[in-house]
Amino acid sequence: MHGIIHRKFNLGFQLFAVLFALCLPWQVISAPLLPSWQDSPVKKRLIKFIIDTTKPNSPKFVEIKNRIAVFDNDGTLWVEKPVYFQMIYTYDALIKKLNENPKLATTMPYKVLIKQGLKGFSHLNKEQLLQVYSTINANMSVMTFKNRVKAWSLIHKHPKLHCKYSELTYLPMIELIKLLKSYGYTIYIVTGGGTEFVRVFSFKLYGIDDNYVIGSELKTNVIDNRGKLSFWRTNKIDYINDKTEKTLNIQRIIGKRPIIAVGNSDGDLSMLTYTSQNKINLPILIWHTDDKREYAYDKFSKVGHLDKALQSAKKNRWLIVNIKKDWKIVFKNRTCQHINK
Amino acid sequence: MHGIIHRKFNLGFQLFAVLFALCLPWQVISAPLLPSWQDSPVKKRLIKFIIDTTKPNSPKFVEIKNRIAVFDNDGTLWVEKPVYFQMIYTYDALIKKLNENPKLATTMPYKVLIKQGLKGFSHLNKEQLLQVYSTINANMSVMTFKNRVKAWSLIHKHPKLHCKYSELTYLPMIELIKLLKSYGYTIYIVTGGGTEFVRVFSFKLYGIDDNYVIGSELKTNVIDNRGKLSFWRTNKIDYINDKTEKTLNIQRIIGKRPIIAVGNSDGDLSMLTYTSQNKINLPILIWHTDDKREYAYDKFSKVGHLDKALQSAKKNRWLIVNIKKDWKIVFKNRTCQHINK
Repeated sequence: MHGIIHRKFNLGFQLFAVLFALCLPWQVISAPLLPSWQDSPVKKRLIKFIIDTTKPNSPKFVEIKNRIAVFDNDGTLWVEKPVYFQMIYTYDALIKKLNENPKLATTMPYKVLIKQGLKGFSHLNKEQLLQVYSTINANMSVMTFKNRVKAWSLIHKHPKLHCKYSELTYLPMIELIKLLKSYGYTIYIVTGGGTEFVRVFSFKLYGIDDNYVIGSELKTNVIDNRGKLSFWRTNKIDYINDKTEKTLNIQRIIGKRPIIAVGNSDGDLSMLTYTSQNKINLPILIWHTDDKREYAYDKFSKVGHLDKALQSAKKNRWLIVNIKKDWKIVFKNRTCQHINK
Repeated sequence: MHGIIHRKFNLGFQLFAVLFALCLPWQVISAPLLPSWQDSPVKKRLIKFIIDTTKPNSPKFVEIKNRIAVFDNDGTLWVEKPVYFQMIYTYDALIKKLNENPKLATTMPYKVLIKQGLKGFSHLNKEQLLQVYSTINANMSVMTFKNRVKAWSLIHKHPKLHCKYSELTYLPMIELIKLLKSYGYTIYIVTGGGTEFVRVFSFKLYGIDDNYVIGSELKTNVIDNRGKLSFWRTNKIDYINDKTEKTLNIQRIIGKRPIIAVGNSDGDLSMLTYTSQNKINLPILIWHTDDKREYAYDKFSKVGHLDKALQSAKKNRWLIVNIKKDWKIVFKNRTCQHINK
């Protein structure tokens, strides 16, 4: 009898303890936090901020509904070189389209891309870029577009790092997102990429669901096909979610100032600045410094141009993540690497 | 010793049981569900749907991330008569403005409103409506606008129901929102009202936070005042979140089809139809039938016009909530009522 009560008591208490621990993530947890990050001052400051903002009675405590963190995507959560993945998708889909319609290859602006490959994009003017973009990304239903992107991602590989695009997410960032979530943070992706393009990947790769993805938008129509409603992507741009437009959309869609913002280029400067003006805040800048494991670029790069945001980060003591110094591991799949290096 | 163990065991077990119950809301809970609803077939169908979609192994089970419910606001969560509250706010703020600037009272379109009160709105054309609207709701910072709306809501009372606007939310709907949340549903307000106007109330009244409010939008600018960023409401309409625009914004911002949609007018027909085309779905139509406790109106009303949506609801067996028959209580504060009735 004694023994039975004891066992039952232990079982109840253990289960209770487990549930209690789940409710209080700031308790000592045995697994190391952010294992792919070097044990540098950057990691320490990051973890300290998370604990400070979530521990009751901390002077920096932020109530759970205001724990908003916004992440840029290209160059922050996954690779953006040699060009943004949505441009590579556009190129690959264009090549496929040319097989069906070879005439396109002889007309501008497609001609340049056929001849020069991805580099050809840098020779197109804005109008031509939009023409190519809308030929591939628009004038179809949202569902068709997403299915095509998904199919592409299952087959195509990155031209330099030789693995699938979905494998080119930064493991340290995925760990950071998971950690923030476990501490009650709500995470948004605020990206210059197309909303529907990024949604194909966001939940699978980062655990960030469709309703937490804020991206660039084409004007879209509701199509009524005998009462059945669906969405049609026109070839008109609604807005490009970059620079101040990111900040605007944070207000429009989230409606409150984030506590944490993470970006890697001047396109993120506005939302980093906006976040830095919160009472409690941590703007984070990812600095691409590692040409062995990934890419090294900043102010001389057109894609992911980083100049003013780095100056501002240094001046205002934002958290600068130097990939070479601060990340122990870049990609989970270690076969993702430059060959001949 | 025996007694101590027993007490401890009981304590541990009780706490465990409480936590267990919190984690499994589909277990039998002793408090009655939706107490302000009559025990009608409508309430039964509502509760059955919630249980069916959340109980594991149910054929209608929906995983937690897809449990999206969208609610219209005016006429669905709070009163919309004699006109939408944002119009009453506009009128009250206009009267206040006239005290400071009496000249306005002699010019159109303000003249009509001074003479006829709220009824005057129905005599304005679209251009005039926008002129009044933007004089009061635009050309100021988002923060100024929200502060003004908040101050108004603390003072002003409804002209017919004689209590504050924040008291004119439907208690049965607040119970429904709470119940859905406890079953893991994510709730969005999808309203024709202005996003920032509704955000002043949404968390306090419904527990729905800013980032779950989707409304109409003015073109807004980011203002940079010596490096300090804020938002400026211009007097240009970005979009009116009504009819198909509601469905579009559900796709744009939420990115997936809701399971539940609740509305009360033809302006909600598109999102109700869109929701009804989900594999598992419950479109809900609130039908204002109670002129004693609230208002009775449908196809002959300009505000909250309900005709096609009611036909569609009947034809397709959507859940029709007849306020007179299905709600035991309408407002929490029972002093909110028509006097002389």
